[in-house]
Amino acid sequence: MNFADRLAAAVQRTGSVTCVGLDPRKAQLPAVIRNSVADESADAWAAAYTQFCKEIIDVVKDIVPCVKPQAAFFEQLGPAGMVALGQVIRYAHGKGLLVITDGKRNDIGSTATAYAQAYLGAGDRSPWGSDSLTVSPYLGQDSLEPFVKICDQREAGVFVLVKTSNPGGGLLQDRETDGQTVYQRVAALLTELNQGRIGECGYGPMGAVVGATYPEQLVAMRAAMPQSWILIPGFGAQGGAADDVLGGFDSKGLGAVVNSSRHIIFAHEREEFREKYGDAQWQQAVEAATNQMNQQLGTIVKV
Amino acid sequence: MNFADRLAAAVQRTGSVTCVGLDPRKAQLPAVIRNSVADESADAWAAAYTQFCKEIIDVVKDIVPCVKPQAAFFEQLGPAGMVALGQVIRYAHGKGLLVITDGKRNDIGSTATAYAQAYLGAGDRSPWGSDSLTVSPYLGQDSLEPFVKICDQREAGVFVLVKTSNPGGGLLQDRETDGQTVYQRVAALLTELNQGRIGECGYGPMGAVVGATYPEQLVAMRAAMPQSWILIPGFGAQGGAADDVLGGFDSKGLGAVVNSSRHIIFAHEREEFREKYGDAQWQQAVEAATNQMNQQLGTIVKV
Repeated sequence: MNFADRLAAAVQRTGSVTCVGLDPRKAQLPAVIRNSVADESADAWAAAYTQFCKEIIDVVKDIVPCVKPQAAFFEQLGPAGMVALGQVIRYAHGKGLLVITDGKRNDIGSTATAYAQAYLGAGDRSPWGSDSLTVSPYLGQDSLEPFVKICDQREAGVFVLVKTSNPGGGLLQDRETDGQTVYQRVAALLTELNQGRIGECGYGPMGAVVGATYPEQLVAMRAAMPQSWILIPGFGAQGGAADDVLGGFDSKGLGAVVNSSRHIIFAHEREEFREKYGDAQWQQAVEAATNQMNQQLGTIVKV
Repeated sequence: MNFADRLAAAVQRTGSVTCVGLDPRKAQLPAVIRNSVADESADAWAAAYTQFCKEIIDVVKDIVPCVKPQAAFFEQLGPAGMVALGQVIRYAHGKGLLVITDGKRNDIGSTATAYAQAYLGAGDRSPWGSDSLTVSPYLGQDSLEPFVKICDQREAGVFVLVKTSNPGGGLLQDRETDGQTVYQRVAALLTELNQGRIGECGYGPMGAVVGATYPEQLVAMRAAMPQSWILIPGFGAQGGAADDVLGGFDSKGLGAVVNSSRHIIFAHEREEFREKYGDAQWQQAVEAATNQMNQQLGTIVKV
């Protein structure tokens, strides 16, 4: 089944549009995991990252449709971290979760093909085994076409950066030429590239990243890309709230997934959970934070 | 010594402005290496990639200032490829070459910091050990600032995508707003970020990627970013010639390095070298192709 339909099925099965971002950071790991790290070697930290992510996956596997490991934090450990990333992706896949690798990769021509072949294709269909990858559009249409091709071959999907959630994102993305901003141009391109590739759910493989911090643009982007799944970062720690993401969904409650990383995986640090669960029961804090986010989104999204 | 000055010193020491792109591809490896691959496992291919790149490094170490491993081709092998990438980077560094990892990475805030910490810092100063990294600007100024900070801390440099060499690069990069294109805006940003960071050679850590396939823009970009080293891809296999890159250099023959990947590393496939060296003496084809490129550039660039 193609990626768009698998994502729709996962949302409907779990009744959730939450994507859990797996962003392991040394300083924020629960003490019980941090203290188990044998030494300062990359291998030791990589083992801790793997354990941390696997335990989160065990907690959320039946209550969210997908997880989004952030490649940068694994790469920060060097090659050992990249081994851990592969282990985490395969573990999540084995537990029935869809995996969006957040790598913001891209290049030109055959190099773009190499990235697509590296990351796209669940399970044994690619070296890393993820269902989807985030992709940067700066290099233009011919840098995206190789991803379209591999998506077709391997029933995968991508999420292309359109309008990002950071304050400085507008510097290039908001520049307007003949009434159309850069990010609107990217959105139009995604709609072109989805042509002829629409699944039963009404969406295609070329998804978009649109930040929760820009609610008005999210409404406009939903209209401009009626066949693109939207990955919405910026919820929770970055300030986005449930009302802000409403515009990303269609009338059936499909078409978007909302990512939260720190607010879920480091929930044991949040005031509301710290006292109740403490560091020792950090997994329960993860579960409570995920359920809380599902409820917040559930009030507006009827799946 | 900061990266900009080290690059200037390496150019002056070698009398070369050639950057050798390390883009290993299974199908194009010399038969002697391809046939030595024990099985189809990623580990076996990764060992072949490492051997191939190390032999190239041995050939070019005294005749070029820098090499540019393309991360995508290593990532295509999965975790085993990323181990190989680290080995290749450290081997090149050990042979006195500057290493520009071509990863076109970026993200926002603390995630950008993770990429910067992962790749920037030669030798033991970072997990991957490269002197420099290519970076995508789509996420704006606050996505570049973490790289500036790590460059300062680790005497490293970056090359930010400004005007790329591919035909479709213009889709976003050439869009003009109030008389300034997107790529001109990125160039202006690099000049701002280099302020207060200029080395003795006259350049700072924030370099730019400007393709050889757009000679006029290269001249304009040289003027717009007088303190940015320019990495010029697109020479050779992509069609750029010596005259096309002239505009990237200052009057002292500094300010740019010109990358060639396929035309050098797969020189044994080129008609002019195939007969003379054949597949068995592929290293001599690499040497001949590198010397040829040095000579082509040497006629215009007085170092």
